Amino acid sequence: MSTRGTLSAAWDWIDARATPLPIEDALFEDIASADAVDRVLAEAVINPHDLPDSDRAIIAGYAVRASHTVGAGSYSPLSLPLALAINAGDVPPPDTDAVLGFDMAESAESAESTESISGRVLALAPVAVGEGIERRGRVLKAGAIAIGVSHRPLRPQDIGALAQLGVERVLVVARPRVRLEVAETLNPMLRALIARDGGMVGEPPDLIARLGWPDEPTPERFMDGVAMRPGDGAGLGLVGGIPLIVLPTEPLSCLFAYDMLAGRLVRLLSGRTPALPYTTTRARLSRKIVSGIGFVEMIRVRLVRGQAEPLGSADTGGLISAVHADGFVMVPAECEGFAPGAEVTVHLYGLLV
Amino acid sequence: MSTRGTLSAAWDWIDARATPLPIEDALFEDIASADAVDRVLAEAVINPHDLPDSDRAIIAGYAVRASHTVGAGSYSPLSLPLALAINAGDVPPPDTDAVLGFDMAESAESAESTESISGRVLALAPVAVGEGIERRGRVLKAGAIAIGVSHRPLRPQDIGALAQLGVERVLVVARPRVRLEVAETLNPMLRALIARDGGMVGEPPDLIARLGWPDEPTPERFMDGVAMRPGDGAGLGLVGGIPLIVLPTEPLSCLFAYDMLAGRLVRLLSGRTPALPYTTTRARLSRKIVSGIGFVEMIRVRLVRGQAEPLGSADTGGLISAVHADGFVMVPAECEGFAPGAEVTVHLYGLLV
Repeated sequence: MSTRGTLSAAWDWIDARATPLPIEDALFEDIASADAVDRVLAEAVINPHDLPDSDRAIIAGYAVRASHTVGAGSYSPLSLPLALAINAGDVPPPDTDAVLGFDMAESAESAESTESISGRVLALAPVAVGEGIERRGRVLKAGAIAIGVSHRPLRPQDIGALAQLGVERVLVVARPRVRLEVAETLNPMLRALIARDGGMVGEPPDLIARLGWPDEPTPERFMDGVAMRPGDGAGLGLVGGIPLIVLPTEPLSCLFAYDMLAGRLVRLLSGRTPALPYTTTRARLSRKIVSGIGFVEMIRVRLVRGQAEPLGSADTGGLISAVHADGFVMVPAECEGFAPGAEVTVHLYGLLV
Repeated sequence: MSTRGTLSAAWDWIDARATPLPIEDALFEDIASADAVDRVLAEAVINPHDLPDSDRAIIAGYAVRASHTVGAGSYSPLSLPLALAINAGDVPPPDTDAVLGFDMAESAESAESTESISGRVLALAPVAVGEGIERRGRVLKAGAIAIGVSHRPLRPQDIGALAQLGVERVLVVARPRVRLEVAETLNPMLRALIARDGGMVGEPPDLIARLGWPDEPTPERFMDGVAMRPGDGAGLGLVGGIPLIVLPTEPLSCLFAYDMLAGRLVRLLSGRTPALPYTTTRARLSRKIVSGIGFVEMIRVRLVRGQAEPLGSADTGGLISAVHADGFVMVPAECEGFAPGAEVTVHLYGLLV
């Protein structure tokens, strides 16, 4: 049996294909931390040692003994018997206990010298013991969670922290493999979308994305048509137990059917949140949006002088309308549209420049 | 001569290193359109043929002759002598002139059949001539600009449109090559940041990013210390005419010095906008921010229940504070900070999940 269904019912079905968590070990991958950018952790990273592993300067300046600066002021500079120029991150010498910022000192030599210039530095302000210094273990104790498990792909600074902590390998969620059976012209777009969502084209498939239903093996049809525009020609089913997302042939519909259906499953299987990978902004409509009842409609918009300008209706304009768009507005199934000036949520395609 | 300088003066110097535009041909690259995702176009793409190249259905439904539906209603269904189920994107048969959505029709057979079912379809509403159909060339005429030149990297749908238009190769801005001379632990983070900004580690370098000033060849020092925290140990100069960004050793300072200085140059040279590649949001502070005068300070924050919670001060917390952060607030040099409850702009690290 097959039925047309709502987008919300389609999401419920898709979400059920990616649970229950925790997923089995076979879906994890042990990789070098340096290669883990944009991957999702499968287990928390524990901090192997105190951070910092010694006291360290947190500003560039002069390592000093705080007691030497007592009483210093811009009108009463004090000559420092001990003052060593150090950079942020350096270990202060054992006989110092504070760092005096360069802006709080005056040097008899030119300011860029980083050599020891004891006796030639004047303090223009007092510093307290420990000022400008971070104590060993202050940031993160050994044994504490350094990076917890979340649905957020690792960012460059996470990779940097793994290197800093000496964590050389991490366990991440394996990339879901997609069998892609589409026309050649749709292939590059879908590959780029799948990669963006943390998946890859590969075998054996965790899901199948194709144009139209296969004849063999006989698919189990869950939904044949989804109440959304563009993309209402999409379908959901199983082939030999593997989720199958039927994508429409028309490129714009294919884009939206991917983002709303196949992409949701790829994102879930890659350990990410199922939500659309677009930031949102609120904007007022420059013109009205008319929308049919019973379909979620995705209306491409441009942002012009802070206002959202609809580019035609849900089904018009083809893929080029998504090229010319800054994002889209989702009109709920039960909504007939929005009046000019109405404030709407815009899903943004990439950063605006 | 060397000087400490403001972030704004540093930006002026960096921006001058990437102009004047248009940049020379040697900095362009001719690549396969399918590989062009995330690259920046160096010249506009002209549409080679009418789009669509024939009349096409824009919704799935029955291709009909509009005149046959005149007078149809849900209480007065009309049997259609001609009704062929077609998908969005299909070419309507020559003897039809409109597409009647499936929701506006009733079929004597089960709804999922896609075969011709002439005489067995009832129209529940009238359609006008041309309804549900997009005419040849309606979206974009041959010779029109399909994708214009902008600083925006190409997105998956742009790649899809290039394939649809039959544009097999495009001219893009070459990836700027960065010579990276840093400690091993900083390497993976910086590589990830450079790749994110459209650059690559390579030779001969378009810019050099290193820890500390080289002794040989003698660098021309433009700025030695930038009034920002973290990252005030950064420097700017030229080595044999090639821009040199001196990064601080401390990982958190290195991250911010990259983002604010080296990354800006990478983004500009890759054809992108110099702006930080982070979306922003407005949020109220849950606690006050105290900031020193004379430095731009970047305070990491977490978003907790819609409020921005500062994570320590500009220099504290090390790189792990950027791991635990959702983003950061930039406090201008002339500002002493913000009161609790103040609305601030937060630069977001990636999508929130």
